[in-house]
Amino acid sequence: MRDVAVIGVGMQKWGELWEKSTRDIFVESALLAMDDAGVDRLDAMYVGSMSPGIFASQEHLESLMADYLGQKHIPATRVESACASGGLAFRLAWLAVSSGISDVVLAGGVEKMTDVSGGQATHALATAADMKWEGMSGVTFPGLYAMMAVAHMAKYGTTRRQLASVAVKNHDNGLLNPRAQFHLKISIDDVINSVKVADPLNILDCSPITDGAAAVILCPADHVKKFKKPGVKVIGSGHATDTIALHDRADLAALKGVGEAAARAYKMAGKKPEQIDFAEVHDCFTIAEVIVSEALGFFPAGKGGPGAEAGETARGGRIPINTSGGLKSKGHPVGATGIAQIVELTEQLRGEAGERQLKKARVGLAQNMGGSGGTALVHILEVM
Amino acid sequence: MRDVAVIGVGMQKWGELWEKSTRDIFVESALLAMDDAGVDRLDAMYVGSMSPGIFASQEHLESLMADYLGQKHIPATRVESACASGGLAFRLAWLAVSSGISDVVLAGGVEKMTDVSGGQATHALATAADMKWEGMSGVTFPGLYAMMAVAHMAKYGTTRRQLASVAVKNHDNGLLNPRAQFHLKISIDDVINSVKVADPLNILDCSPITDGAAAVILCPADHVKKFKKPGVKVIGSGHATDTIALHDRADLAALKGVGEAAARAYKMAGKKPEQIDFAEVHDCFTIAEVIVSEALGFFPAGKGGPGAEAGETARGGRIPINTSGGLKSKGHPVGATGIAQIVELTEQLRGEAGERQLKKARVGLAQNMGGSGGTALVHILEVM
Repeated sequence: MRDVAVIGVGMQKWGELWEKSTRDIFVESALLAMDDAGVDRLDAMYVGSMSPGIFASQEHLESLMADYLGQKHIPATRVESACASGGLAFRLAWLAVSSGISDVVLAGGVEKMTDVSGGQATHALATAADMKWEGMSGVTFPGLYAMMAVAHMAKYGTTRRQLASVAVKNHDNGLLNPRAQFHLKISIDDVINSVKVADPLNILDCSPITDGAAAVILCPADHVKKFKKPGVKVIGSGHATDTIALHDRADLAALKGVGEAAARAYKMAGKKPEQIDFAEVHDCFTIAEVIVSEALGFFPAGKGGPGAEAGETARGGRIPINTSGGLKSKGHPVGATGIAQIVELTEQLRGEAGERQLKKARVGLAQNMGGSGGTALVHILEVM
Repeated sequence: MRDVAVIGVGMQKWGELWEKSTRDIFVESALLAMDDAGVDRLDAMYVGSMSPGIFASQEHLESLMADYLGQKHIPATRVESACASGGLAFRLAWLAVSSGISDVVLAGGVEKMTDVSGGQATHALATAADMKWEGMSGVTFPGLYAMMAVAHMAKYGTTRRQLASVAVKNHDNGLLNPRAQFHLKISIDDVINSVKVADPLNILDCSPITDGAAAVILCPADHVKKFKKPGVKVIGSGHATDTIALHDRADLAALKGVGEAAARAYKMAGKKPEQIDFAEVHDCFTIAEVIVSEALGFFPAGKGGPGAEAGETARGGRIPINTSGGLKSKGHPVGATGIAQIVELTEQLRGEAGERQLKKARVGLAQNMGGSGGTALVHILEVM
C-alpha cells in the first residue's frame, strides 16, 4: 500500500445552476481540479452521485463523465452511498492509488437537484432511508433527524438554542466562502423563529437543495513533485455501516457507524481526536453536527451542544468545524458533499483558504454520512 | 497485490419473483454464496445495482444489504455502471482483496425489475444511454442495438439467420440451467418470425426483464484451504469505457471499449484469446454476442455471425459461449448479470455445472457491459 496525496481540487459556486446540466457542472469542477493539479490525462476516475436516475433521468454517469471529460477508454466507476457518495468515491480513488493499480486518479461528486419538483426531491432523498419500514410509513429525513434531536435533548438536555448556534456559526463561515450557496448572516432568534419543518427542527436547521459538483486529483505521495501544487497527504480512511433504519438502533442519540469509521481512520492515521486541528462534518441538520462532533471524539457524549454554543467549534475555537460553511450554508448537492469536504481540507492545509484560513491547519478530518448514519466515511489529511 | 480466488457462489432461480422484494432476493443469493464458501462473517461487501431508485424507490442499497445480511458495521459499497454494475462490483471486490485491505469479501448484484410498468422499465433502462442526445430523441436500447446490427450486416454481410442462431443456442443452454428464467426450446424460424421490436431485431433477439440476484465470495488465493470448497483464481481484470453515445463512434459495427477491457485482462492474465476454454458474454441482444465475440478475439471482425451459425460457440464447439443460457435465456436482472457470469465460470471450473458441464474448462472469461458498450468489464478465471 502506497502513501497517497491530493494534488488538485476544484468546485464551482453552488446554488440553483439552472443554466447547466449534470454533465456541465461535473465537467466544470473536474477541469478546475485537473488545472489545479496540472494534469490533462487521468488513469481512472470515481464519480459519486446519489440518485441521478430520479433527479436527471441519467444513470451510467461514470461512462458519460469520462467521455465528456475527454478521457477516452479510462476505467471509470460510479459509486452511490446516499449522501456519502462523495466520501465513498474519495475512498475508492485512494484505494486505487494506494494499491498501485492507478497513479493519477480523479474523485468527483455531483448532484443536480433543482430540476424536479419539491415533492420529487423529497422522494429521491427518502430512498436513502429504509423505504419499506420508514419511507412507506411517511417519514422523510427531517422527521428522522427530528427523532434523533428529541432523543438527544431528552438524554442530555441539549437545547433549542444550542442547535441554532450550529446554523448561525455555519452561516458565519459561509459568508467567507465565495462558492457557498448562501451568503446570509443569521441569528439564534432567526433560527428559533423560522418555520417549523419537523419538531424540534425548523427550516434554518436544515441543509438546502442544491446543484453542484466538486472534484479532487490524487496521486502517489512520492510523485507529488511532478505536479504544479504542494500535495496534502491522506493519512487515514475509515468506512463503516450501521443499521439503515433508526428503529434497529439501541440509542437514537448516538451515531455508532460514525464512531466506527472514525476509530478506523484514527487507527490508520495514528492520531487521536485531540490531534485534529479542524474538521468538515456532515451537518445535514444542526443536530447531526452535534451528534457527529461527539462520535468523532471532539466532545464527550452530550457535550456537543454546549460546546457549539460556547464557540468551541467556531473558526477561533478549540476545534473549528465546517469552516467552509458546511452543508447548511455552502449547500448540499448530495453526491458532491463528501468531495467538497476534501476541497476545503486541502485548501486549509495548503494555506489557500483566503478569508477563512485558519492559523493552525496541519491535520484536518472530513466526515461524510449517508441516510441517518447508515453509512459513514471519515478521512484524515495532513500537510506534507 | 495479492492473488485472489473465488471460494463461494450463490444465486436463486431467476424470473418474475413477485413474492420477494429487492432485499429478499439479494440476501437469499448472498446467503447461498456464504454457505457455499463456509463463511459467516464478511470483511467488506460490494453491491452492483443499476437503478433501484427507479425500479424499487430504494437507493443506499449497500447499507440496507449489509444490515439485512447481519454484517454489522462492515464497509459496504454500491456501484453502478448500468448493466455492467455486477462486473464492476466484482472488480472492486477483487481490488479490495488484492490490495490487502480486506480478506473475505462478498461481491453481489441485484435488480428487481418487474414491479413497475413496462414503460417505466424501458425508461429506467434508457437512463444507461446518453439521455440528452439519445434518450430525449426517443431511442431506447433495442433501437441502439438495432443500429449496430444494421451496421454489422452492411459492413460484413451478417445475416438474420446468424443472429437468430445466437438466441437458439442460448435457449438450448438455458434448458440445462435450473436457475434460468426460460426453459423453452426455440428454432431459427421462431426467432425470425417473432414480433418485430426494432428492425432487424425481433422479440426473440432481446434479453428479458427479470428479477434476480447473484453473489460470490472472494479471498486471498493463499487462504483458500481454510474454506469449504476448492477456489478458482482470478487471473485477469480489465475495465474500460467508450463514448456513451453511438454517434461519437467511428465504427458502429465494433465495440472498442470491450476490446480495450479485454486487452487489459489478457495482458494481466498472460493469456491469448485462443487459450480461453469458454466464455460468458453480454448477449443483451443477439447482435451484442456476435460483436463481443469478435472484440474478445474469438473471431476476426465480421466472422462472429458465421461462427455462431456454424456451432463454434455451442457447448461442443471450439469456444463455448454462454453455457449458462446467457442473458437471453437465463434472464437479465441488470445489476446481477455480471456476478451471475462469475457464478457460471466458477461452477464450470469446479466441475459443478451438472448437465451443462464442459469437458474442457480450465480457463474461463466473463464479459459484462453497460449501455451500448460505454462501459466494459472483462475477467479471466482459472482452476487452481
